[in-house]
Amino acid sequence: MALDAISLPDVSGLTVGILGGTGDQGRGLAYRLARAGQRIVIGSRSAERASAAAAEIAALAGEPADVTGADNAAVAAESDIVIVAVPWDGHGDLLASLREPLTGKLVVDCVNPLGFDKHGPYALRVPEGSAAEQAAALLPDSTVCAAFHHVSAALLADPEVAEMQLDVLVLGEEREKVAVVQALANRIPGMRGVYAGRLRNAHQVEAFTANLIAINKRYKSHAGIRVTDV
Amino acid sequence: MALDAISLPDVSGLTVGILGGTGDQGRGLAYRLARAGQRIVIGSRSAERASAAAAEIAALAGEPADVTGADNAAVAAESDIVIVAVPWDGHGDLLASLREPLTGKLVVDCVNPLGFDKHGPYALRVPEGSAAEQAAALLPDSTVCAAFHHVSAALLADPEVAEMQLDVLVLGEEREKVAVVQALANRIPGMRGVYAGRLRNAHQVEAFTANLIAINKRYKSHAGIRVTDV
Repeated sequence: MALDAISLPDVSGLTVGILGGTGDQGRGLAYRLARAGQRIVIGSRSAERASAAAAEIAALAGEPADVTGADNAAVAAESDIVIVAVPWDGHGDLLASLREPLTGKLVVDCVNPLGFDKHGPYALRVPEGSAAEQAAALLPDSTVCAAFHHVSAALLADPEVAEMQLDVLVLGEEREKVAVVQALANRIPGMRGVYAGRLRNAHQVEAFTANLIAINKRYKSHAGIRVTDV
Repeated sequence: MALDAISLPDVSGLTVGILGGTGDQGRGLAYRLARAGQRIVIGSRSAERASAAAAEIAALAGEPADVTGADNAAVAAESDIVIVAVPWDGHGDLLASLREPLTGKLVVDCVNPLGFDKHGPYALRVPEGSAAEQAAALLPDSTVCAAFHHVSAALLADPEVAEMQLDVLVLGEEREKVAVVQALANRIPGMRGVYAGRLRNAHQVEAFTANLIAINKRYKSHAGIRVTDV
């Protein structure tokens, strides 16, 4: 069935927590979703830093943005959907420590395991296959999806950008949960959530961020992707 | 610099050989490029089968299409650009056998190493990292680029499709050779060749074909990608 003919759930009442919400990607997603009217809770190791970032994001997003901050464990417990936007270093340790508060939650991993050297970025080997599969292995009592890998943090955070003209690839095992993540992406004007396969095919989606960085360097762009013919 | 401001070489006079030109992907690329006026040589293990496929493609593309067939070694020797569109099984053996006729040639690998099981497609581990890197390792006297992974064979082969509205990601080490491959992609109406990184980042581009197959299954589409903001 064509993408635009598939009805998605109403997610406007859900609270979205963002682990690593003080980093560039997490902060940008928080801003865009808050601006779209989503209730956001920013997570960080430090509740104080989380609250400070939340206040900044709320001010930027304007009324009636609902953005608060808390430490990562409190965010996990308080949220319906938990976006993981932490650096790859420490990804596994953080999620392992949050197994209990993340029980029953929808966890959306958007982490890209990349290395950098003088030739630029490259994909790191992940023993579990991908960051998303690592999350799924560490969180057997949560549902893990993968999404939001390719959205430019610079564009997300730029108040002058009214629409994000790109697609968010959503990967996961459970169709209903994938639909929730697609609906969340659709909350951001211009953005479409597109199902793009099971978690075992998440590695290449994460790694493709290295190609986007190469594209950005060559063309001075903030590249993303659109899926054609859907 | 913006993509459309970069001048690319004129490739209209070059002969393009297609190894595996009797398969779906090779045949589709041959048809599109012949229709755009490119001189094409179809390669196959059997010169007879190659010539038969060439005659069919020439008839489909109409006058003044220039399509002939030959065995793979003759195609390698005769062509300026050699597209590798063979099945992953046998990819390495074929290229190793063609090292000599491919000396000095621009080799464009579009092979996707995928496996299939009851859950659909998945990326295969390639010891060299990717099909393209395997080609580069086996062909030290050629220049290897990677491209044309995501173009739907069904759309390529459909005479009713006037324009292919998608981007071709081109990977490679040498900027001038990458530009030749971009220019070749640009010969097909609607298609853009976009530089997307070095060969060490080819794996995820090849593997992403598994995601496109998942997208096609879900949305009954012939999906490709457009890179946004370039």
